[in-house]
Amino acid sequence: MQLIKLQRDNMTSQKEPQEGHSTSTKVTGPSSWSKVSCPCCTSTQIEPLVLIQLAESVQPITKQWIMSVIAAPVKAGGAQLLVHPGEDMKGDMIVVAAPRCTLHRVTEELGLCKTYQDGDMKAFSFEDRDNFCNIDDTQQFLTLAERQFIVKHEMDLMKALEDQRIPGIPAPAGKLKARESILQKLEKAGLIRSITPLHDQERLADLGKQWYSQKSLWGQPLDYIHNYFGGTIAYYFSFLDFYTLSLFPPAILGIFITFFLPSANFSTAIETDSNASSKISDDDHLSVSSYMVQAVFSMLWSTIFMELWKRRSASLSYHWGTFNLAEQFQEPRPGFHGEIGTNPVTGRLEPLFPDWKRKMRMGLVSVPVVGFFLGLVILGMAGFYICERLVSSWHKESGSYFTAPLLYLPSIAHIVYTNVLGNVYRNVALKLTEAENHREESSFDYHHTTKVLVFTFFNNFAVLFHIAFFKEDMPLLRKRLSSLLIVTQVVGQFTEVVVPFLVDRFLTSANRNLKEDDPEVDHLQAQGSLPAFPGLFAEYIELLVQFGYLSLFSCVYPLTAPLLLLNNLTEIRTDAYKLCKLFNKPFSAPVANLGVWQLAFEVLSFISVISNCWLLLLSPRVKEWTQEAGLSSSQVIVIAVIVEHVLLIVKMILAFIIPDEPDWLQVKREQIEYNSMQALKKQRIKSTRVDGKLQKAKMGE
Amino acid sequence: MQLIKLQRDNMTSQKEPQEGHSTSTKVTGPSSWSKVSCPCCTSTQIEPLVLIQLAESVQPITKQWIMSVIAAPVKAGGAQLLVHPGEDMKGDMIVVAAPRCTLHRVTEELGLCKTYQDGDMKAFSFEDRDNFCNIDDTQQFLTLAERQFIVKHEMDLMKALEDQRIPGIPAPAGKLKARESILQKLEKAGLIRSITPLHDQERLADLGKQWYSQKSLWGQPLDYIHNYFGGTIAYYFSFLDFYTLSLFPPAILGIFITFFLPSANFSTAIETDSNASSKISDDDHLSVSSYMVQAVFSMLWSTIFMELWKRRSASLSYHWGTFNLAEQFQEPRPGFHGEIGTNPVTGRLEPLFPDWKRKMRMGLVSVPVVGFFLGLVILGMAGFYICERLVSSWHKESGSYFTAPLLYLPSIAHIVYTNVLGNVYRNVALKLTEAENHREESSFDYHHTTKVLVFTFFNNFAVLFHIAFFKEDMPLLRKRLSSLLIVTQVVGQFTEVVVPFLVDRFLTSANRNLKEDDPEVDHLQAQGSLPAFPGLFAEYIELLVQFGYLSLFSCVYPLTAPLLLLNNLTEIRTDAYKLCKLFNKPFSAPVANLGVWQLAFEVLSFISVISNCWLLLLSPRVKEWTQEAGLSSSQVIVIAVIVEHVLLIVKMILAFIIPDEPDWLQVKREQIEYNSMQALKKQRIKSTRVDGKLQKAKMGE
Repeated sequence: MQLIKLQRDNMTSQKEPQEGHSTSTKVTGPSSWSKVSCPCCTSTQIEPLVLIQLAESVQPITKQWIMSVIAAPVKAGGAQLLVHPGEDMKGDMIVVAAPRCTLHRVTEELGLCKTYQDGDMKAFSFEDRDNFCNIDDTQQFLTLAERQFIVKHEMDLMKALEDQRIPGIPAPAGKLKARESILQKLEKAGLIRSITPLHDQERLADLGKQWYSQKSLWGQPLDYIHNYFGGTIAYYFSFLDFYTLSLFPPAILGIFITFFLPSANFSTAIETDSNASSKISDDDHLSVSSYMVQAVFSMLWSTIFMELWKRRSASLSYHWGTFNLAEQFQEPRPGFHGEIGTNPVTGRLEPLFPDWKRKMRMGLVSVPVVGFFLGLVILGMAGFYICERLVSSWHKESGSYFTAPLLYLPSIAHIVYTNVLGNVYRNVALKLTEAENHREESSFDYHHTTKVLVFTFFNNFAVLFHIAFFKEDMPLLRKRLSSLLIVTQVVGQFTEVVVPFLVDRFLTSANRNLKEDDPEVDHLQAQGSLPAFPGLFAEYIELLVQFGYLSLFSCVYPLTAPLLLLNNLTEIRTDAYKLCKLFNKPFSAPVANLGVWQLAFEVLSFISVISNCWLLLLSPRVKEWTQEAGLSSSQVIVIAVIVEHVLLIVKMILAFIIPDEPDWLQVKREQIEYNSMQALKKQRIKSTRVDGKLQKAKMGE
Repeated sequence: MQLIKLQRDNMTSQKEPQEGHSTSTKVTGPSSWSKVSCPCCTSTQIEPLVLIQLAESVQPITKQWIMSVIAAPVKAGGAQLLVHPGEDMKGDMIVVAAPRCTLHRVTEELGLCKTYQDGDMKAFSFEDRDNFCNIDDTQQFLTLAERQFIVKHEMDLMKALEDQRIPGIPAPAGKLKARESILQKLEKAGLIRSITPLHDQERLADLGKQWYSQKSLWGQPLDYIHNYFGGTIAYYFSFLDFYTLSLFPPAILGIFITFFLPSANFSTAIETDSNASSKISDDDHLSVSSYMVQAVFSMLWSTIFMELWKRRSASLSYHWGTFNLAEQFQEPRPGFHGEIGTNPVTGRLEPLFPDWKRKMRMGLVSVPVVGFFLGLVILGMAGFYICERLVSSWHKESGSYFTAPLLYLPSIAHIVYTNVLGNVYRNVALKLTEAENHREESSFDYHHTTKVLVFTFFNNFAVLFHIAFFKEDMPLLRKRLSSLLIVTQVVGQFTEVVVPFLVDRFLTSANRNLKEDDPEVDHLQAQGSLPAFPGLFAEYIELLVQFGYLSLFSCVYPLTAPLLLLNNLTEIRTDAYKLCKLFNKPFSAPVANLGVWQLAFEVLSFISVISNCWLLLLSPRVKEWTQEAGLSSSQVIVIAVIVEHVLLIVKMILAFIIPDEPDWLQVKREQIEYNSMQALKKQRIKSTRVDGKLQKAKMGE
């Protein structure tokens, strides 16, 4: 295997000021890395960051071409990274590292903030890099996750500058159009099996010890997680942490109501038979008010929880240097297409796509299609009920021993239907979001997740709402919900953890015997062999369902909160173990908040207020109580409407009153705003003075 | 009368670069102006901008002192303006003008945007002033209203630098503490009767011709209004304009339903007696659906109207150069007090007041007090109903001819009570808002207006809601509302226009005969003699009530919209006439939107959706229709709840979908954001390089 020869013709045309550092690179592996393409990097050691696994069919010439593109400078459409051919027997690996100046340049492009010499977090600026702390120690300056994300980000942006062919691939698949994303093309053509950030085994062991092996029940090393796994994952665990902590007040209230409030203690009512009727009515009255207390409490709790989380989230984003991310000023995401033009804001040449067109597509295509699928869900549910009724009546009338299994047919058909529909929908949602052609990655994720989320929620909750509001069958609702809660949690944790653990232990050990000669290469290969991390969608959905259950139904089951608290304390550990041990390390972008999940939790807490009021109304105890109080049903409904509106208004006022950012962060933000306003004015003067001088000089000529 | 001698000791310490223009000032009046305090102004003519009328008791020494303060430089606590002693016989006038450099400096402080050489609107920068268009012609560069507002703004900021006494005023009233606002003190001590911006009679006549004397029904010279009267007033008229234009669609729908839809045409039902019962039920059915159409239409209309107005408002603020106002970076408003400290954002020394203290005061004092007053309103209403019932039953039982007038007693008592309460509340609201100690003028206005608005609304609408939802007496509601609409409009326009017009014509003509020798001075005095402009509160309230009436009840009266359209077309003219002729010219701050009124209209349009649904439910036709359809009352309420929630959700989605700014403005805003981000980074490099050089220089020493 030979060293890839890079075309270094464009090297000298680089933008970065070349301060003439010496280029002394020490190679980690026994093999040769591609040379650093800029002369300004002084790093004494190359750190392998990302592993690309090629398909086994890839020919050496194609691999060579891919490596040359990754190592090529950005101006030539490359990623300006360092590549290493991997040196395994199959020859299907490429190891990628990053030179320091690429890391710094992209840090500025992403808008990451780093500690300035005066101790504040400031947007990193390449030209001003010497004033940032730890600038000389890249491993201190950027977190491992950031370095790996930067590598992925740069590879995503690799573009063909003109129509060309990928060597070694026949024409239709190997043809690259101008401005086409190279990595997307390679993935579509099936040339790349996986792209994985590499683990640092030593630090991983250390992190694991602090995270899930520790004896104490509380606390996660959030900064360490952010450092090692990156933004989105750190945000998930921070939220899980905060949420679990927030469960204490409702848990305490729930335990208090269940065990210490006499009215809810049914045993006393049963024990004292004398004067039973008045006692029971008294009890009912009290427990109705305890329902009310719980309902109002959970409404207030969910609102305050979300508002405090926003504050926490804002200060996390400051500490992690992501409060200034400006994705709209970055290059568009790889899948983005449009007519080439000048971006009116940044002045860069890039594809442009008018916003109104995107909105048209969303309004006229995406929304109707999603609506159509939601309709199919309802149709399926209706069909299920009708079939069930038909089958059971037919079985009663003319059934025999052999027709009994037919009773299960509608359920089976419905489950199959729901699953097929779900799978089809997932593909459709992806295609729809791609067609919407979002410019930013975060906006793409936002719209994609929203689509899937709406469907998932509808799919899960339509049946529950049907039971609650049409059948008005509260016992069935409780049964369904508790099974949803318990079964989903238990099955979820089992399938998510135990199965992969067993697979990891017994199945992959077979693979491990196929050792290479070189333990280093073997180690790399082991990392590639784990399954890909399935993403945080399922985790968030689980939390969302929990949260919904808690804010919707804790007034019916006061012990929900303590149970959830226990569940989450284990959930943190299992999620952590899973992430560290059972899957490939995922890429994780620097983010400033939960993104669409923030919205989802807020919408749910709104819905929960409305739903709470109406469910309370339907609960048999409240019905009895209102009948005793001599209220007509329409009066009761009117009261419920008033209560609902008042609660919603209180909720909105609370959300309005609690500021979304801590005061100190607001001051920082205003400082930045003020300073950049001043800087803009000053810059204008200077630039016009320079213009003036140039003009004078020209006139002098 | 002698020229005021100014201390010009601090003159040379001015910040502005002194480019050494010649100071040739031509005085307009026959008397002498104070001299321009900076040598950079080249204006050949002094334009009198503001008239201060002192109390008649003010001694010449006090007047001299006031003039010296106004002319003193900002560093000495003055306003750095030009003063003229007025030269009337009474000696109670001061005329104020502004030198060019003060105007420019304050323009930058306010954050006003002006046309840059490249045609864009950019935040004005004093240092960069030569690159702005029309910089040499102050009357072109700044509008008349802006110049006058700047004069007022600077006089508001005049501060005593140390404890001192106002000459000619005895100790308690004449004692000034350090950092106390001088103008506020003078006004409190009763030394200043009024401060009025001066009219430009020629332009006023021209504006009047274009505005209210023109023959065409449509169009207002909005830019001219903004130029002459300033931001808040121009925004009011722009909103009135936009609102009136927006009335066309509902007006057309209303006319169509009334005259062209057979179902609403009652005469046909009366004409055809045969088969009457089925016909009427058919009619009812149709008119119920036309109710529905109107209700849904008015909901959609009010939402789209508000959203489109936001867009219009945003582009107006761009054109008028106010989209970049940053009040939080300016000096605090004069009434603001707190411990002196360094503002963490701007680095200036000024009073600081923690936000949490303000919030505590708002939450623990303002909110309960306002609630208490709202309680008093309800108490008054309840008392009125009880008394009325008592009196009428007593009159029926044992009444005679003489007890009949007693029947009016409760009404009279209620009216007196309401009025007294309203007056007391207005003072309380002002005091409360002052105690909240807001830093920015706009924030003060916001909270003050909100308080008054809530009370006014409650006072006006509590009775209506009582009639609608407790008495369920729809005919009475309609009667009350139509009287509210018609009587308020007619009486309002009469008292607002006709009375001042008559007073102006007949009463003030007596004053006019007291002429001075000098026609110029006489002219100035005539301007001071008009009543003060009462502000836009009453005007906005009128629009708000209209808007509420329209969005609440147009489904009951389809002709509301056409009537309002007619009313508003005259309203524009009468308001314009009033402003131009019948009152003193008001000061008007540059603003970027309607402020609190925007919120009020949005809240009202939310309430109207809710109220609409429930009023529809109570309307007798809908009741009949539901009875015929065989729906139980609780079913009907449930349907209403569902409809209400769906409408609210549609409303929220609509508000979310329609962007608050036009696309081009968003691009401009992003450009500014991007450029200032870049500028901040660049500036940092330069400043640290300079620091580095200084350090090197020091180390070299």
